[in-house]
Amino acid sequence: MVNYPNARKLTVANDKISASQRGMNLEQELNLSNQYYLAHDKAIIHKKPTPVNIVRVSYPERKAAKITEAYYRTPSTTDYNGIYRGKYIDFEAKETRKLVFPSINIPSHQINHLEAVNKHGGIAFVIIAFSTINEVYLVDASYIIEAFKVSMRKSLRYQEIKDNGQLVKSGYNPRLDYLTVVDALYF
Amino acid sequence: MVNYPNARKLTVANDKISASQRGMNLEQELNLSNQYYLAHDKAIIHKKPTPVNIVRVSYPERKAAKITEAYYRTPSTTDYNGIYRGKYIDFEAKETRKLVFPSINIPSHQINHLEAVNKHGGIAFVIIAFSTINEVYLVDASYIIEAFKVSMRKSLRYQEIKDNGQLVKSGYNPRLDYLTVVDALYF
Repeated sequence: MVNYPNARKLTVANDKISASQRGMNLEQELNLSNQYYLAHDKAIIHKKPTPVNIVRVSYPERKAAKITEAYYRTPSTTDYNGIYRGKYIDFEAKETRKLVFPSINIPSHQINHLEAVNKHGGIAFVIIAFSTINEVYLVDASYIIEAFKVSMRKSLRYQEIKDNGQLVKSGYNPRLDYLTVVDALYF
Repeated sequence: MVNYPNARKLTVANDKISASQRGMNLEQELNLSNQYYLAHDKAIIHKKPTPVNIVRVSYPERKAAKITEAYYRTPSTTDYNGIYRGKYIDFEAKETRKLVFPSINIPSHQINHLEAVNKHGGIAFVIIAFSTINEVYLVDASYIIEAFKVSMRKSLRYQEIKDNGQLVKSGYNPRLDYLTVVDALYF
């Protein structure tokens, strides 16, 4: 049983907190964008459910099963995948409040997963949101793999991500038009 | 809050029951097969986690977060997806104890999802296991869509699935070599 990193706990908690309470977060903006893409038949991309180990389930009065004991589990892959323009697409999305992106935000098995996706001919990247300055970047997986797996960097500075990634524009709908960046970068 | 269909409750419960206790089930066999494919760098296919709505989380003694109230949620997509030979692959897997496959086993939103995957150029199918006779079939999504969405059939008989699907061979490793069927059918 692996403890869940703090960053993810926050994201999960947000599932139950309405957007008005604390402003939009990256996950919500990506989910809305993916809903937009789906509704416009542009892409089929979904966030995977948060993985939990279910230990105990009760069936009160034969109603809906109630899970009474469960624990967060480390995801074995990235959070998002799907199909776009006939290609397999796979990415992880992370938020940071500082102007630095620490390597611990992307566990090594996620890096390995992105590397494998690349090798199999899929499109793989990481979306990094600097929440304090409201800027979101799409960074190709190969850059992240090189930094965190090959060069063993402990973190990437904002300026490096700005220079090596692509700014994702925010809008009304889609909230985060990251497929426009994908178009430019991979097609 | 939608109640979880019984078929899925069983599958979830099995996460916590060792294989020796009740014999292998379809989900476990597919997971082992996918692990084999991954280890042999043949495909990257994962089962999505079971989606749950987390209502209450406690943090006993600052240890791992403990989920104390949660409910099963209806999945918005199919359970399995990934990349194989550069193509996006997406499928649902279902077990039936009778020699008939009822349409309620595949909710309409999953049918729509498979249809969308087809339209976007992905490979989409359903794996159906007849557990009492130990036979597993891979059925192309278009056949399922035609039967359950277009013709509004209530069920498909074993013989129909046998005639219109492909038998998936069981073995030691991989347990269910469904990619061999995919090779023959889609490549």
